[in-house]
Amino acid sequence: MPRWKPDAVERLQTAALELFDEQGFERTTVAEIVQRAGLTQRTFFNHFADKREVLFGLSAELQQEIIGEIAAGDDALPPLDAVVRALEVVADKMLENRRAVVTRRYAVIAANPELQERELSKNAALTEAIAAVLHARCGDPETAFLAAGAAMLAQQAAFRKWTRPGETRTLRDLLPDALHSLRTTVNQAPVDPPLPP
Amino acid sequence: MPRWKPDAVERLQTAALELFDEQGFERTTVAEIVQRAGLTQRTFFNHFADKREVLFGLSAELQQEIIGEIAAGDDALPPLDAVVRALEVVADKMLENRRAVVTRRYAVIAANPELQERELSKNAALTEAIAAVLHARCGDPETAFLAAGAAMLAQQAAFRKWTRPGETRTLRDLLPDALHSLRTTVNQAPVDPPLPP
Repeated sequence: MPRWKPDAVERLQTAALELFDEQGFERTTVAEIVQRAGLTQRTFFNHFADKREVLFGLSAELQQEIIGEIAAGDDALPPLDAVVRALEVVADKMLENRRAVVTRRYAVIAANPELQERELSKNAALTEAIAAVLHARCGDPETAFLAAGAAMLAQQAAFRKWTRPGETRTLRDLLPDALHSLRTTVNQAPVDPPLPP
Repeated sequence: MPRWKPDAVERLQTAALELFDEQGFERTTVAEIVQRAGLTQRTFFNHFADKREVLFGLSAELQQEIIGEIAAGDDALPPLDAVVRALEVVADKMLENRRAVVTRRYAVIAANPELQERELSKNAALTEAIAAVLHARCGDPETAFLAAGAAMLAQQAAFRKWTRPGETRTLRDLLPDALHSLRTTVNQAPVDPPLPP
């Protein structure tokens, strides 16, 4: 895709991911990242508070987009469907064209407990923000909490598949499948006990 | 309840919670905790790696009990029901008689981002352990992942009610209600669009 201006954030993120991938997160310095990106440390710290944050640059924007989509969405949809619908739109808009980078980022985070903690924290904040917008919409805090959590669960299941080597389906296509699997799992009924002889 | 021996771990946890509650987690030292408990720093560090861990002493034991209950449970139950059933048994066995302490712990954690991160991390580890035992049982990793996540969601919803001031129902009673609410939320169907005039 042609770009009308060089994107410092994206260059820093790509350089950081390459280096984390090659030599590990711990062993990579900010100096190495800016060198690989052809930028200065000043630029780095203009955009990110620390080395960890370079991996989470997209989080705030993603959250804003998801919340915006839920708020703008069809009121007739039940809360869970409304969130999954918003996740589908945002997946198309912000993630699908970055599949390789997002997949690499996921692998780097999975390899480092400190990064996993930050990721869990960002996900918890996103879930809470989703629950808040659902609560305002449906009026019931428990339904909002459960719908937000269930949507994030479907999202994670879809995401795991989307980042698997060889997977070609889009995240948008995987999301409804994951929601279907979640519904099936949640609705599984106990097997009847065998009849007495 | 009469105890056959003094429980250093419980005394340290109670003292720590009281102090965190009174003066905040950050401002409390290990020296103050052991003084309040009438024990030594040596005893503290025999049981806990750091000040944070005093709040998470029960986690490993809880996880072990929950996994054991799932493994020992009725094979005819679908994965989600099997986990909720195990959570009910463990709630009765390990949490119900500690309601005040557990509620206070929950409030201390909610007030401190660093403690919240640790809590999220422990919950993620528990969810993964549950998913692993379900996977071994049902053979399908996605069903295992979704059932474990859904059970934790019901658990959190029940837990939120259980720790609310004035709530008198037991966690064991609140769990099936939360599971029912989760099922209702996940199954809500879209409202039909209005007929054209």
